Amino acid sequence: MDPSLISLPPLKNLTTENITHNVHLINTHNNPEPRLSYILERLVTHLHDFARETRLSTAEWMAGIEFLTKTGQTCTDVRQEFILLSDILGLSLLVDSMDHPKPVERGATEGTVLGPFHTDEALAMESGAAISHDEGGEPLLVVCSVRDMDGNPIAGIKVDIWETDSTGHYDVQRPEVNGGQPDNRAIMTSDKDGRFHFKAIVPVSYPIPHDGPVGQLLLRLKRHPWRPAHMHFMFSGEGWDPLVTALYVRGDPYEMTDAVFGVKDGLIVDIGEVTDENMAREYGVSVGHKLLVYKFVLVSEEESRSLREQRAREALEKLGRRVKIVDGLPVPDVD
Amino acid sequence: MDPSLISLPPLKNLTTENITHNVHLINTHNNPEPRLSYILERLVTHLHDFARETRLSTAEWMAGIEFLTKTGQTCTDVRQEFILLSDILGLSLLVDSMDHPKPVERGATEGTVLGPFHTDEALAMESGAAISHDEGGEPLLVVCSVRDMDGNPIAGIKVDIWETDSTGHYDVQRPEVNGGQPDNRAIMTSDKDGRFHFKAIVPVSYPIPHDGPVGQLLLRLKRHPWRPAHMHFMFSGEGWDPLVTALYVRGDPYEMTDAVFGVKDGLIVDIGEVTDENMAREYGVSVGHKLLVYKFVLVSEEESRSLREQRAREALEKLGRRVKIVDGLPVPDVD
Repeated sequence: MDPSLISLPPLKNLTTENITHNVHLINTHNNPEPRLSYILERLVTHLHDFARETRLSTAEWMAGIEFLTKTGQTCTDVRQEFILLSDILGLSLLVDSMDHPKPVERGATEGTVLGPFHTDEALAMESGAAISHDEGGEPLLVVCSVRDMDGNPIAGIKVDIWETDSTGHYDVQRPEVNGGQPDNRAIMTSDKDGRFHFKAIVPVSYPIPHDGPVGQLLLRLKRHPWRPAHMHFMFSGEGWDPLVTALYVRGDPYEMTDAVFGVKDGLIVDIGEVTDENMAREYGVSVGHKLLVYKFVLVSEEESRSLREQRAREALEKLGRRVKIVDGLPVPDVD
Repeated sequence: MDPSLISLPPLKNLTTENITHNVHLINTHNNPEPRLSYILERLVTHLHDFARETRLSTAEWMAGIEFLTKTGQTCTDVRQEFILLSDILGLSLLVDSMDHPKPVERGATEGTVLGPFHTDEALAMESGAAISHDEGGEPLLVVCSVRDMDGNPIAGIKVDIWETDSTGHYDVQRPEVNGGQPDNRAIMTSDKDGRFHFKAIVPVSYPIPHDGPVGQLLLRLKRHPWRPAHMHFMFSGEGWDPLVTALYVRGDPYEMTDAVFGVKDGLIVDIGEVTDENMAREYGVSVGHKLLVYKFVLVSEEESRSLREQRAREALEKLGRRVKIVDGLPVPDVD
């Protein structure tokens, strides 16, 4: 027998009461990564408490095993069913809120769920480009700026934009439509005044894919699978905390019941019209063209890190644990 | 918009603090199944608390999504990687302990983990049969009885038996060895005196399959994947609580560090030898043949249900919830 194991506590005669502690012991005994130890300790504690508090039956446990198996097997290159599951359980929004805290009171744009349909396939386009080939969609001019919390424009920010077509499907869901090429998505860069603009289509509400295990769960909970109309944006640039967000069209029937909990007041926008002749000429559209205008406000990496760490310390102190930050993430500080 | 949704609380502006409550609201609002509502409430509470207490980062969340996806995609007809995951996190043992509580102080045989290698393919065999075709294994005579807690024999109990071959593999892992036919497993029935016996091989220790995501996790935690030598038994019969258990060979190098936490003192057995000429003749073996003798003690369905419900009530009361039992499982009793 490996002599290094001799010092382990005897792992036998485990019961409903003592198993959690013993799983912690074996998971931490030789584990060289304190952050991983901490994550496993919390995971096992909550997993076991969940089972103890529900008195999970063997049949229910097996139903859970089968549900997770089907969820994994529903995933493909272009479909991520576990992200959908995380989305409809509110976990995605929660993780984003913690990882990218926003001083909203100082004007920072709020983040929201990434969703499973971001891809790395979008083409880089010049400001002003048309990102949609969908002739069924209602044309929309989108005029945006990127600033810091003091109102200074930020140049050179990479902006990833994606939305569905007018039938409520992302390009990866209908590869036949645009010959397998990316559509209704693009990557742009903010100019020296922090600005970028593009031609897209008015977003529509759509159901998340609900022909898989997640859809079956929603059905059984009698929840609808709809998301209100929105357009996704993701911002990144040296020295700035990444912003994953979306803009929601005001008045959507699902504004209050988004299946993935993404809507925030500050991200709800009015779709207006271009009323000014000069503006119409400047952007190459007609008067009366649908218009969306938005000012995004980014938070510096440093400020975001400081806020994230402060909240992490508060959360761990609330748990009664002394904390140290290792590589930006909290672990209990064991003497 | 579906008018039935109008009465929902507005699900927007969700934050680290209020999201859990709001996910509960939408999961329970229209859900007609109280047990499912309760399970989801506890699941979401623990999932969110896990994320809040670890301050789970987006990168870690994505690593988790990818781990679960790979785990699902490693599953096949003959491999259940999610059961392995449940086993190495101690969840399987915990669920079995709650669902099949044993009054051990009154002599009931303890249960232990089912593991992922039980199949429905085993052939029914008469008592006395040889269940192994493995000529590399050390022959073992197994002589058992099934009794109730008062010592009365129980006839007609279905006994499912399975073990690995002498290389530490179950038949489904090496279908080429016995022409795809079941091997080292059988189904027997206890006779009028509650007895059954069979010829098998001395169990060997073996590693759980560790070439998949679960094996990678064990490696990263610096845990070994070994299980001590054991033979599985599953008992079922009208009026008796199913017993899923295993017998462990005393002195195995992994007796104290079973990767799936299954070992219990009462299930550790000595492998002896047939010393008596008459016994050797009776069972058709030679003196000196390896011998395993065990008396299994079952609990009635009624007694098991009563103990399970009593412990469920205690657990829910500890949580501060009034409880009712619906179809044998606890749900909070809401007025």
